Formats: sequence, structure tokens, C-alpha cells
Amino acid sequence: MLRIAIAGLGTVGAGVVRLLQKNAGLIATRAGQGIEIRAVSARDRNRKRDCDLSGIVWVEDARQLAALPEVDAVVELIGGAEGAARELAEAALKSGKHYITANKALIATHGAALAKLAEPNKSQLLFEASVAGGIPVIKTLREGLAANRISIVRGILNGTCNYILTLMRREGLGFEDALRQAQEKGYAEADPSADIDGHDTANKLAILTALAFGVEPDLPAVAVEGIRRIVQHDLKFAEELGYRIKLLGMARMSDGGIEQRVGPCLVPLNSPLAQVEDAMNAVLLRGDFAGDVMLEGAGAGAEPTASAVVADIIDLARGIRLSAFGVPAAALTRLKPAAATLAAHHYMRLQVMDKPGVVADIAAILRDEAISIESLLQQGSSATESVPLVITTHDAEALAMRRAVDKIAKLKVIAAPPCVLRIED
Amino acid sequence: MLRIAIAGLGTVGAGVVRLLQKNAGLIATRAGQGIEIRAVSARDRNRKRDCDLSGIVWVEDARQLAALPEVDAVVELIGGAEGAARELAEAALKSGKHYITANKALIATHGAALAKLAEPNKSQLLFEASVAGGIPVIKTLREGLAANRISIVRGILNGTCNYILTLMRREGLGFEDALRQAQEKGYAEADPSADIDGHDTANKLAILTALAFGVEPDLPAVAVEGIRRIVQHDLKFAEELGYRIKLLGMARMSDGGIEQRVGPCLVPLNSPLAQVEDAMNAVLLRGDFAGDVMLEGAGAGAEPTASAVVADIIDLARGIRLSAFGVPAAALTRLKPAAATLAAHHYMRLQVMDKPGVVADIAAILRDEAISIESLLQQGSSATESVPLVITTHDAEALAMRRAVDKIAKLKVIAAPPCVLRIED
Repeated sequence: MLRIAIAGLGTVGAGVVRLLQKNAGLIATRAGQGIEIRAVSARDRNRKRDCDLSGIVWVEDARQLAALPEVDAVVELIGGAEGAARELAEAALKSGKHYITANKALIATHGAALAKLAEPNKSQLLFEASVAGGIPVIKTLREGLAANRISIVRGILNGTCNYILTLMRREGLGFEDALRQAQEKGYAEADPSADIDGHDTANKLAILTALAFGVEPDLPAVAVEGIRRIVQHDLKFAEELGYRIKLLGMARMSDGGIEQRVGPCLVPLNSPLAQVEDAMNAVLLRGDFAGDVMLEGAGAGAEPTASAVVADIIDLARGIRLSAFGVPAAALTRLKPAAATLAAHHYMRLQVMDKPGVVADIAAILRDEAISIESLLQQGSSATESVPLVITTHDAEALAMRRAVDKIAKLKVIAAPPCVLRIED
Repeated sequence: MLRIAIAGLGTVGAGVVRLLQKNAGLIATRAGQGIEIRAVSARDRNRKRDCDLSGIVWVEDARQLAALPEVDAVVELIGGAEGAARELAEAALKSGKHYITANKALIATHGAALAKLAEPNKSQLLFEASVAGGIPVIKTLREGLAANRISIVRGILNGTCNYILTLMRREGLGFEDALRQAQEKGYAEADPSADIDGHDTANKLAILTALAFGVEPDLPAVAVEGIRRIVQHDLKFAEELGYRIKLLGMARMSDGGIEQRVGPCLVPLNSPLAQVEDAMNAVLLRGDFAGDVMLEGAGAGAEPTASAVVADIIDLARGIRLSAFGVPAAALTRLKPAAATLAAHHYMRLQVMDKPGVVADIAAILRDEAISIESLLQQGSSATESVPLVITTHDAEALAMRRAVDKIAKLKVIAAPPCVLRIED
């Protein structure tokens, strides 16, 4: 019997209890032993929860779970990089308990330190649920593709943003309206910033980067941009050009270092990632022998996340013992950021006054930065109002692109800040 | 140091050697120890191979590899359910060696017996490479989704068929022309039967069924149909109706038993499986908590298959010890075939003489079997020649459908055998 304690009984915590109870027989057969929930802890004892907690010890302070002698593993579903979660993790690992968590902020921020703490204590640190919910992407990177040198990780890792972008495209909505609908339907939180500004994706990306490249998670090294500035025009132009806009987390080897980037990108309409719609998540992994492997599924929600948490519990019960990031913690290297981002095609939307010479001025600036134009689209024309003008470029370096955009933004005919997006072919 | 022997040095075998050599350092770090190829065996010693075999013992008869005392694991890439592969597997497992294979026929046919042989000898039986090449679908079913009750497995598991169907659709080719092009480009073998008649898919499906449902692989229980009778009309009509034709392997719980079926199906154009084109493979797994998880990637080829073989080798070197099918061999139950297949929408293409009353006759037969028509498409009209007529139905049971088709086929106005395909929504 593997004895666990669960810290945090929100929707995911209750989902884990429900799953362990509903599939108990099947899980015990697969795991080789039963899983017993010995103790739980949550802020509000009286909250109504859709699971049976009878006979389970209730502990007031989650941190006490680490001290219970009759518990083999702590399952933490509190969240947050600091505070109770971090203290619980450190105490549990130090006392030789295993630690299973869905806490992406904790792992992205303190993952390497926690892995170093776990090893001498023979504790397992497991976090499948921290990235992409029910999709077993951690296991795929750590084990399924373990023979491969990974060159690229690229993922739609935030269901809220994908839902909003899908809604904008399908319903022709502006960002604010789409966000409101997403909030009404429960796909976005009252304070949506962590999702729509890209930070949630950044946490997940930092974890995948660590697993893919054998480095310590390095959250501050992720360049982060959200989807607030995407407007309806962008979705229409993208479609016309044969692309779809997705918020991607992307990590790759580049120029002797690792590039980690979160931001809205254009992906080709016929690429697998473009087809991932609504609140779905997907991750594309490129290995030198496996080629491109894509995983797609529900990236959030109580039940998919519980599926990932319990998969870790079953691994534990089966006696699987692995380094948290697939290599000994001491072998994790510091992430060396790429000196320059890889050149890429770019999409640039300008809001211009429709006057003679506009295109000539813009084209001259691009030429001076050695950026070559691939296509140019203008929609409508007006003697008095500005109109959108879209330019896509051939491969251009990010720095040259930024210099050009800064100059273009200062042209008198430019009526609004330019919007520049990478094209990820 | 984990010491292995490789039986079979065809393209996959040479790929495994190349991978172990190219990524040796990275693999040793991840595996916790180096991997040493001690011995190899292949039919033709003089064949030119794109890998370095210097210093490796060459054994004439693959079966001798099981007897080498200095070998921990045998990697078998010979293929075939009987003969040398089966004898080698039995001898290796009996002598306490681990057995890693890409041999789908062996596992689909003797998987349960081999798993029973492995357990008392503490041998691991691993076969990630036997299904879908570089896609870690075995690991995903056995571990990643281990907390879930699986209800459906549905996959494009044969790259040759997917390539042919893609070519037919894109280029407007007939089946024979597409097959010839696939052969010229190396996507189909000189004798293409195992692929295009569905047997390769059936082997893979039987393995996935065992893992998903905890049953012994039961290859004879798979209903198998290939893609030979698909004509250009079918692809066009499917597209018009909002579908794409794919050769699917499909297993599901149905009517108290398990339905296993391989055959060409219509899948909705906007479904993830419809987007899997060319020689790519994909598997969709439905869990009661994870929901739908789809994995997509290269299903064949030396390098992706080598990636899967070496992933198993790394698992072994890491000390992971699991039951071959995720549960103890004694816990595998005999597969109970479903008494009836689940009702489904059907597509029926008829070649009819364009005479008054044709549709009335056909509609009456369908009505008598309580099958209701969803749509009807006729293309062209001719006073002298037959024209294609396509009918799609609402949910209909396979048996009722077969009775109706038998009757329809006997109508005087029917000029060719009807083609009936399931619609998998």
C-alpha cells in the first residue's frame, strides 16, 4: 500500500481523490499495490467538494503533512513558487518523502534546487501535471524520447489563450469581447493576466526546456509576450496569408545557446499546431532520430490534471525511480541563453495613412536593415482615415527587425504602434 | 555498463547502432550508465551498412545470442511471429535476459505467453518500437495514462496506406497508380499486401488493445479490411460530405466486449486524425479522466524506430522494471469480443443505372432494415452508363447494414459491388 497525503483540495485536488476512488481496482492492478489517501489539507474544511473524504485525516497546516510518519508521498496542489508550497516541498523531500505536484511556478523557479534536495534523500520529485494537463509530455521528454538530442520544443501550453484566439477568429470578436466570453464560460479567470500575458506558458516552457536540454529551469531567461495586442485584423490577415495565430512557447538550440520565447506567432494553416483549437494544448518535440512528435490533448481541468497526478503516483507505486529532470541534478547545466535569436520570417501590421509614398518609405527602411519583403497586403483605402497594411518578410534577425520597426513607427504616416509577430514555419 | 546484443542488422538494426554511437554521451548521462553493443547477428556479414561494427562480436545464428553470458539484453529486429525470432525470444527470456523488440507480429501473436515467460525470470519484455515507430504510444498507454479507464484506441498505424490515400486524394490518382508511386518512392514494398490489406495495422492494434484493456493480445479477433477497394470517387465524395478517408485501427469497449477493427473509415475533416497526412502515423487514446490524447509522428523508418528501441534500452539501464503489458501477465484476461459492433453512421457508394425508381428501391430496402438516410449524392447522369450514387446513413448496426447491402447488391440497376465504409465521428 502506497500511503499519500494531499495538500490542496481545489478542483484538481478533489479530482485526484475522485480518480483514486473511482478507478481504485484498476489502479491497484496496474500499480502493483493499492494507493491509500492517509491525510489531506486545505484552507476551507467546510467547502462542499465532489469527493468522499471520510476516514481521511484532516491536517490544518499543509506543511504538517511533511512530518506525518505514516505517509510515503506528498501530493501538492496548492500552487505558487514560494510560501506553503515551497516549504512543504523542502520539508517533504528532506524527510525522505516523495513529492508529486502540479505546481509549475515552483518547478520552474526552484526545480533544480528541489531535485538536488531530493536525490540524497532518495525522494522522487514528480511533476507531470505541471505542464499540459492530461498530456504526458514530461514523461515523453524524460523517457519516450530519451535517446534523442532534442532541437526544438514548441507548444500551445495555455488553453485560455488558445480559446480566446479561436473565439476571435471564428466569431470575429475583438480581444476584450473574446476575453469576456472566455471568462463567462469559465475558460479565463477573473484576473486573466497570468494566462493572457504569457506567464503561465513561460513557467511551463521553462520546465520543458530543462527536460529537453538537460539544463536547470531558467524562468527569467524566457522572453515573454502575451496576446493582448492581437486584433481582429491580425487574424484575418494571417488567414489570408495561409497562417493561424497561436500563442506559442518555444525553446530551441540557437547560436550556441538556448532561445526560450513565449509569444503570439503565425503558424502555417496546414501545420499540426494550427489545427489545435479551442482550449486544447499541444506540444511538438523535434528529436534527431524520432523526428517531429506531436502530443495533443486537454491541457487543464480537474480530470485531465488528476490523470497526470495519478500517473506519477502509479509510477511511484511501481517502483520507478528516476532523476527529476532525467539526468542527475548535478549534471544539469546552467542555461546559456542564445546570443541571438534565429532569423525568422516576420509578420508586421501597420496602421498607415493612405498617402502616396508610404510603401516606398517603409520599403526603404527595411532595405536599409537588409530585410527583404515577401508579401504586402493593404486592406481598403481612405483619404481621411488610416488603413491597415501588412508586410511579411523573408528571414530577418530579431534585432534588425526591431531597429526597422522603431524607425517605421516614427514615420508621420504611421497612425498606431506596429504589431510584429514571428512566423514559425 | 548495460551490455546488449542485436539480432538483425537491416535498416532499423543499423539505425540502432548509429544512434547508440552518435548520442552515446547523452544516452549514458540519461541512462545512468553506458550502453555497450557486445554482439550482433545478421544474415549477410558482407552487406554494406551505414554504421561502425568494429570490435563487436559477430554471431552466425541469432539464436546463439541468448546463450552469451556477457549479454544483459537482446535486441531483436528480425521480425516474424515464428522461427528465429520466437526461438530467440523464448531462449533469451528463459535465461534471464531482457528482450527488446520492434517485432509486432511476435508480440501480437505470442505477447501474453512471452510476458508469462519473462516474469519468473525477472526479464523485461519491451516493444515500444513495435507500434508507430518514433511515437511513444506503448509508454503512454502503459504509464502516462495508467490512471485511466481507456474506452477507445483509434489510430493511423500504417504509413504506407496513409501515403497512398493522401496521394490519391491530392493527385486524383487511382489506387493502382498511387501504389506504384508509393513503391517507387520507397513508401511501399514490392509485395505490398501486409500493408495495404491491413494486416500490419492489425498486429499493431492487437498490441495496443492488450495494453489499453488489460487483455491478452488477440490478433485473430481483429476484423481486417484493407484499402484496395477505395476508388477516386470515394475520396471526392468523402471530401464533399466533410470527411477524409483513413485506414484506421480501432479498438473499443462495446456491448460488454471489445471490438477490434481495421478498415478504411471516414473521419470528419476537422478532426485531428483527418489532418494526419502522407506517411505520418497518429494514435488517439480516450481515457475517462485524461479525455482524448492524440500522439502524432513518424510511424516507420530506421531513425524513428531506432529512437523507440533505444528508449526501451534506456528504461532498462535506468532500472525501470514493469510488466510487459502494464499488469502482471497472470492478470491479463482473455479478450471477449463484442457481441455486436457499435452502431455507426455509414457511407455507401453504389454504381447504379440512372433509371427512374432506383432511389425508391434502395430507400425501401434501407427502410425495411430500419436504417435511416442522412444524405444522398448522385454525380452526373447517363442514359446508357452507370453513375455513382452515394448514401450516408444515420446510426446503423453493422449486421443490419450488411443485410441491406446484400439486398441492394442484387438489384438489377446495381452495376458493381457496393462499397460500404464506417463513419468514425
